[in-house]
Amino acid sequence: MNKDLILLGHGSGGKLSHQLLDDLIIPTLSGISRAGQNDAAVVEHGGQRLAFTTDSYVVDPIFFPGGNIGGLAVNGTVNDLAMMGARPLFISVGLIIEEGFSRTELAEVLSSMRGAADAAGVRIVTGDTKVVPRGKADRIFINTSGVGAIEHSFAISGAGARTGDKVIVNGTIGDHGIAVMARREGLELETDILSDCAPLNGLVAEILAEAGEAVHVLRDPTRGGVATTLKEIALQSDKIITLHERALPLNGAVKGVCSILGLDPLYVANEGKLLAVVAPEAAERLLARMKRHPLGHGAAIIGEVGDGGGKVQMETAVGGVRAVEMLAGEQLPRIC
Amino acid sequence: MNKDLILLGHGSGGKLSHQLLDDLIIPTLSGISRAGQNDAAVVEHGGQRLAFTTDSYVVDPIFFPGGNIGGLAVNGTVNDLAMMGARPLFISVGLIIEEGFSRTELAEVLSSMRGAADAAGVRIVTGDTKVVPRGKADRIFINTSGVGAIEHSFAISGAGARTGDKVIVNGTIGDHGIAVMARREGLELETDILSDCAPLNGLVAEILAEAGEAVHVLRDPTRGGVATTLKEIALQSDKIITLHERALPLNGAVKGVCSILGLDPLYVANEGKLLAVVAPEAAERLLARMKRHPLGHGAAIIGEVGDGGGKVQMETAVGGVRAVEMLAGEQLPRIC
Repeated sequence: MNKDLILLGHGSGGKLSHQLLDDLIIPTLSGISRAGQNDAAVVEHGGQRLAFTTDSYVVDPIFFPGGNIGGLAVNGTVNDLAMMGARPLFISVGLIIEEGFSRTELAEVLSSMRGAADAAGVRIVTGDTKVVPRGKADRIFINTSGVGAIEHSFAISGAGARTGDKVIVNGTIGDHGIAVMARREGLELETDILSDCAPLNGLVAEILAEAGEAVHVLRDPTRGGVATTLKEIALQSDKIITLHERALPLNGAVKGVCSILGLDPLYVANEGKLLAVVAPEAAERLLARMKRHPLGHGAAIIGEVGDGGGKVQMETAVGGVRAVEMLAGEQLPRIC
Repeated sequence: MNKDLILLGHGSGGKLSHQLLDDLIIPTLSGISRAGQNDAAVVEHGGQRLAFTTDSYVVDPIFFPGGNIGGLAVNGTVNDLAMMGARPLFISVGLIIEEGFSRTELAEVLSSMRGAADAAGVRIVTGDTKVVPRGKADRIFINTSGVGAIEHSFAISGAGARTGDKVIVNGTIGDHGIAVMARREGLELETDILSDCAPLNGLVAEILAEAGEAVHVLRDPTRGGVATTLKEIALQSDKIITLHERALPLNGAVKGVCSILGLDPLYVANEGKLLAVVAPEAAERLLARMKRHPLGHGAAIIGEVGDGGGKVQMETAVGGVRAVEMLAGEQLPRIC
């Protein structure tokens, strides 16, 4: 294998992505340490703390059950801001369109972006449109960048997990990845699996109102899934996270597709889920509050944090314990 | 012709781009009026004025005389912020990489980004990397978004041109577009034409220090060239702009390539040029100051603003007058 080539796995969000980021991209561009890496950068200006983030969306197919690339692009960036506890303010939109793309479909994608922005209470204020010749891109790619206001003084960061903390997820895992994959592969399912694509800023506001400084980490488990995100947190916080397989909320249809195809839902992307690592004394009360929110009624405590270095393990349903690593390679390319 | 299809010309920065923006993209996403459209959005937060902008770069080839896609992406966004008189603060980087792209070339592109950021005094603080299968993108596309601080109280906007104002450009026009095109087409030139790719924030700081509120419009004439940018200003300000062909600074080699290929340098992209529309009493003094700056020694007064609605005209070298319209179609695709 030619080691000079970029592989699909370098975009997986998993192990290869982290290697490329840690070995080349981050040292060259900015030099931000691993412990300082979060879903959005926190920057200071004029005495204000702002969150700033960017994501490009290359999902295939662009229309999938439960959404399309437009709403996904807005919600994804809203969520990256929300994971810093920031209130999303402004979004930019960069379109790269393949020559010959349908204007009707473009209108549908843009309309979905506007709907998502309105739902999240964020304004699209600036944009750019490029068109490349047929065959030089795949229909449409969308970049969204976002600026949010950090109006709390809590230290929310991937490095913040403490021994004894509980890990909460706000609902079923793997829905987005399996919805996209099923549509791409033309699987005929009895019940459509819908993407969970949704803006999480409202739920995060509730979480901070309820638990405040007891919230140590917030992350959305997108590419690489819950497993990869928890491994990142474990590494950044230098802790061990133990998951309970029985506690993982899982849609029956997602479970079925995963078992047929040999996929592990722990590694499948989500677009409307968050992981909150919170102080134990706040966990049950917070869980109850989350369950009352439309995007949290499937919430569950799925694990806890212990002493130990950069590891994730799972207590399986049959009573064993297995190590959980980052996604290796590319399980489901172009899932977001 | 199927009217539902997106054409290359929709990404030209010219007439078709404006139609797509005015008819579909802007009304759907934001509803910002034409008069309010500038190189960057101006947003307010916490009593501060910020500029926010985004651009995706799809230039082909990615390495060209005088630069590469990386430096171009940083300078382009720095310049969009500078055109609002903003001090660039933070940049985001979104990479879309084709599977099989060379890691060595990626390193070179990233290193150029860092160099450009350091030169402009701006920090790259957040990023995202996607990889798509071979044939689904063309090597590498880069989105950069940027946030800048607006620390002056001048009203700089495309709608600000007044009757009597002078139009100044900071040097020769068309260098970037012709440098990229010559490399793409494999033209053998006696002297290499270099892209003018450069960060303009330093020059803008000088311009504002010298002329302050006498500066009414700042724009960088990228896609669509000087002609299209002036036409935008004329439309936004509802004025007529008269250009003097003899006054246009033009590199001899660029002029030669343009005349051989039947291109008009007025429509060719620049990446280190700005157009300043300034009050007449400040023009000569400002010109002298600009000429002392490394990116302004070729500066010239190229025209003036008069009463009339949304028109640009050129007094030709032979004494005639011709109308100057926006770029129609796509003269040089993928130039930035």
